Amino acid sequence: MAENITSRETDYSRWYLDIIKEAGLAENSVVRGCMVIKPHGYALWERMQRALDRMFKDTGHVNAYFPLFIPKRFMEKEAEHVEGFAKECALVTHTRLIENPDGGGLMIDPTAELEEPLVIRPTSETIIWETYRNWIQSYRDLPLKINQWANVVRWEMRTRLFLRTAEFLWQEGHTAHATREEAEEETHTILEVYRSFAEDWLAMPVLTGPKSDGQKFPGAEYTLCIEAMMQDKKALQAGTSHFLAQNFAKAAGVEFQTAEGKLDYAWATSWGVSTRLIGGLIMTHSDDNGLIMPPRVAPIHVVIVPIYRKDNEKTAVLEAANKLAAEIRDLPLREWLNYEPIIANVDDRDQLTPGYKFAEWEVKGVPIRVEIGPKDLKKEACVLSRRDRPGKENKEFGVPLSGAASRIGELLKQMQTDMFECAKKYREENSYEVDDWEEFKQRIDEEGGFIWAHWDGTQETEDRIAKETKATIRCIPFNREEEKGKCILTGEP
Amino acid sequence: MAENITSRETDYSRWYLDIIKEAGLAENSVVRGCMVIKPHGYALWERMQRALDRMFKDTGHVNAYFPLFIPKRFMEKEAEHVEGFAKECALVTHTRLIENPDGGGLMIDPTAELEEPLVIRPTSETIIWETYRNWIQSYRDLPLKINQWANVVRWEMRTRLFLRTAEFLWQEGHTAHATREEAEEETHTILEVYRSFAEDWLAMPVLTGPKSDGQKFPGAEYTLCIEAMMQDKKALQAGTSHFLAQNFAKAAGVEFQTAEGKLDYAWATSWGVSTRLIGGLIMTHSDDNGLIMPPRVAPIHVVIVPIYRKDNEKTAVLEAANKLAAEIRDLPLREWLNYEPIIANVDDRDQLTPGYKFAEWEVKGVPIRVEIGPKDLKKEACVLSRRDRPGKENKEFGVPLSGAASRIGELLKQMQTDMFECAKKYREENSYEVDDWEEFKQRIDEEGGFIWAHWDGTQETEDRIAKETKATIRCIPFNREEEKGKCILTGEP
Repeated sequence: MAENITSRETDYSRWYLDIIKEAGLAENSVVRGCMVIKPHGYALWERMQRALDRMFKDTGHVNAYFPLFIPKRFMEKEAEHVEGFAKECALVTHTRLIENPDGGGLMIDPTAELEEPLVIRPTSETIIWETYRNWIQSYRDLPLKINQWANVVRWEMRTRLFLRTAEFLWQEGHTAHATREEAEEETHTILEVYRSFAEDWLAMPVLTGPKSDGQKFPGAEYTLCIEAMMQDKKALQAGTSHFLAQNFAKAAGVEFQTAEGKLDYAWATSWGVSTRLIGGLIMTHSDDNGLIMPPRVAPIHVVIVPIYRKDNEKTAVLEAANKLAAEIRDLPLREWLNYEPIIANVDDRDQLTPGYKFAEWEVKGVPIRVEIGPKDLKKEACVLSRRDRPGKENKEFGVPLSGAASRIGELLKQMQTDMFECAKKYREENSYEVDDWEEFKQRIDEEGGFIWAHWDGTQETEDRIAKETKATIRCIPFNREEEKGKCILTGEP
Repeated sequence: MAENITSRETDYSRWYLDIIKEAGLAENSVVRGCMVIKPHGYALWERMQRALDRMFKDTGHVNAYFPLFIPKRFMEKEAEHVEGFAKECALVTHTRLIENPDGGGLMIDPTAELEEPLVIRPTSETIIWETYRNWIQSYRDLPLKINQWANVVRWEMRTRLFLRTAEFLWQEGHTAHATREEAEEETHTILEVYRSFAEDWLAMPVLTGPKSDGQKFPGAEYTLCIEAMMQDKKALQAGTSHFLAQNFAKAAGVEFQTAEGKLDYAWATSWGVSTRLIGGLIMTHSDDNGLIMPPRVAPIHVVIVPIYRKDNEKTAVLEAANKLAAEIRDLPLREWLNYEPIIANVDDRDQLTPGYKFAEWEVKGVPIRVEIGPKDLKKEACVLSRRDRPGKENKEFGVPLSGAASRIGELLKQMQTDMFECAKKYREENSYEVDDWEEFKQRIDEEGGFIWAHWDGTQETEDRIAKETKATIRCIPFNREEEKGKCILTGEP
C-alpha cells in the first residue's frame, strides 16, 4: 500500500490523492464533481460531526432541517449573495421523465416544466430567513439559534476530493438576535467552538481572526475564520463564522417588536464547516506511509494483530488478543470520546499475513497497533506501536499484557497532544515576520509559509499583492499584539 | 394549545396536522411539497436515527455517502425500477443563472445546459450498484453491508407532513452478497432490526411479513415490511426490506469471482425507513391534548415546573428544582438511551404561568412533568405526572424529593412498556378474522381495522378487493399459524 503512495516531496498534490485512495476515504463518482465518501472516510466524518454537534448543543443551539430547494426568486433578494452564489448552481427545471417515443430510454417531459426553477441550496440563508419571518414576531422569539446538517451543491469547475466538490456535506448555523451586540457575540462564540474543535479534536492548530473585506462571505458585514497551515506550508480555510448584520432580515422582511415596543430588523449570524475539514486533517498529519488520525476522531482506535503459525498457537494468541480488546473497550475514555465507543479490533483474518495487515492499518491511520505472538505470550507481554512515531514501545521487553490496556489509554491521550504540538511547531517554524517587500516576494517564491506583515487595509493593495505574488491575506489575526507599521507594498500606515 | 387541537373523533386528519403544528414538529415550506423539520421534530428524529444507527452497526453495517445526483441513463437500466421511480422526479438540467438582460432578476443561462439531465435521487440503488461494480471483483470483497443517511426526492402530487413529502430524510441500506441464501438472510435480519426498533424504541407494535407481489418494491424479488395500526385503525407501512436477487447486479454488470473460480452476479438487498416513522409515532400514541413521546426517543424526558409567588419562595423552589434535575441527569439510564444524555429541564421562564407551561409541555409530549411549590417543599416532596396517564403519582402526599429521581427513572421505563402494551391492545381489539365476503365488506365499511383473511394469491383478486372495498393487502404475516382456507372473494384455495 505505502508503495502506492507518492512521497510528499515528489508531489504533494498527488500524495494527498494517494492517501485518500489507499486509506479508502473517498473517490470520485460517475457524476462530475461529486464524490463517494467511502465507509472509512464516512466513519471519520461521523466522529467529527458528533463531537461538533455536542459542542453546538452545549452552547445553546438546536438542529432543524430546511428544504434542499430554493426558489430562484429568493436568490435574487440579497444583492451580494446573488453575486456570490447564484452563478454556478444546479437548477431543477422539470419534474417528470417519460419514455422517448423514438425509443431508446427516457426523456424529459416538456409539459412538466416548473413555473419557477429551483436552485439546489448552495447555502441556506435565503430560505431560512424566509422561514424565520413567520417564526419571529417579538423579542420574546429571540434569540433563535439553529443549526442544520445537510448536503449543499456548488457547481465548481475544478474539484478536488474533500477540499472542493460540487456536492459536499456540512453544517450551517443560522441565528437571529434582537441586538447587534448579541449577534456579534454569537459570531465570536462560534469561532471559539471551531477553534476548540480544530485544536482539541482534530489536533490541527489554527489562527483566528477576521477575513479582509475582499474575502468575506457574500452578504456578511464581516467574516471570522480559522486558518490552518498544511504540510505544504499553504493555508487552509477550515471554518467561517459570519456576522450578517441585518442584511438577510431586510431582504426577507424579518421585523420584530423590541422590548421597547418598536419595530426592528433581526440581527443575524451564519457559520459553517464541511467535509473539507477531512482534507485539512489529512494534510496536517499524514505521512508518506498513509493517513494518521487523531485518536479523538478516529473511527478505529486500536488494531490487534495476532501472530501465529500453528493451530495451538492460534488459540492462545487469539484468546489473549480478544481479552485485551475487551479491556481496551472498557477503558474509561467515553467522556473524552464524546460518549462514542472506543473501537479495538482483533484482525483475525486468516488468509492475510501480519505484514499485509500492518501495512493496511498503517495506511488507514489507526492510532495504536498491537502485536501478540507466541513469544510475547511467553513473556506475558505484547508489542505496541504508535502510528505517529516510528518504532515500538519498550521494544526490547514489550509491554506487560496486564497493564497494556491502561497503557494504551495513556498513549491515545498522549498521541492526541503530541500531534497537536507537532503541527503547531511546524507552523511556527514556517511563519515569518516580514517588513520588506523584496523579502516578502522572495519568501513567498522560495519557501512559502505564513507571513506576518503590515497591510494598508485597502482592497487595491490586497489585489496587487495577490497578483504579484499569488499570496492571499488569510486573516487579520486575533491574539497578536497590535503594533503600528507600514504596508509591505505601499508603505502606507 | 390543546384548544387548538381538533379532537380525533371530529377529524382524525385535522388532528394529526394540529398535533404537528402545536407541538412544533414541522411545517410546510414555501417550496411545494417540502417540509421544514422544526427543532423539536428534528431532535426526535436525531434520537431515532442514532438508536437505529447503533443497531445497524451492531449487525455489521457501516455508513457511507453517495451522490445526490443520478445520471438519467442509470435510471433506465432496471426495467421495473424505471416504472416505479423515473416518472415523478426532480430533474437538474442547467448549472448557471445569469442576470436577465431585460432586467428583473436572474434567468437560466441557456448555454449552461447539461449534456445529460441529472435526477435527484428518489432512492439510490442505481448509482450505488454502479459504484459497487468497481468495489466487487472477488468473493473476498463480499459481503458489502453499507447504509446511507440521506435526503431523497420524489415529486409527489399530494403531500402530507412526515407521511409523504417531496423531499424526505431516510436511511437506505444496500448490501451485496456472494449467495442468494446470505442475501435472503440479510433481508430478514434487517426486518428484525426494524421490528425491534419500532417496538422497543418507538413502542409501536408491528406485523411483519412479505408484501404481495403487487405491492413490492420496483426491482425486488420480494419485499418484507413492518406494518403498524394507527389510531384511526388504518395501517401504516413503517419500513421495508427488499430482496433484490441479482436484478441490480445484472443491470450494472456487477460480476465477481466465486470461491470456486467461476463468475457470478452479486446478490443484493436494500432497505429503508424514513421520517415517515415520526408520523407513525404521532398517530400511534398521541391524544387530544397533544403529542406523547416514548421515553427512549424523547428529546426531553422531564420538565420541572417551579411554582412560586414571592422572591423568597422562588429561591428555595428553584434550588430544589435544580437539585432534582441534576439527580435525574445522573440516573443510570445511559445505556437504555443509547448513550444519549437524559434531558431534564427546569422551566424557570419568569413571564409565563405554571398553567401555560403545563400545557406547552403536554402538547410537546414530554414524558414526565414535575411540579415543585412551597407547599411541596414543606412536605419535602414534589408532584409527578406521566404524560400517558391522567392524574398524578400519589396525589395526596406527593413523591418524596429524596426518592424522586429514581422514581422518575422507574416511571420512564414503565411508561415505555405501557405505551407499547396499550398500542398492542388497541391493535388486537381492532383485528378480526373474517371468512365471509359480505362480513368483510361490512367490517371495512363500518369499523375498519385489520382483517385476517384468506386470499387466493392472485393479482387480479387483490385488485378487485381494492376496487370494491378500498382495502389493501398490507402483508402476509409471519408468526401466524398456517391454515388452509378459501379466498374471501373468489372462494379459490
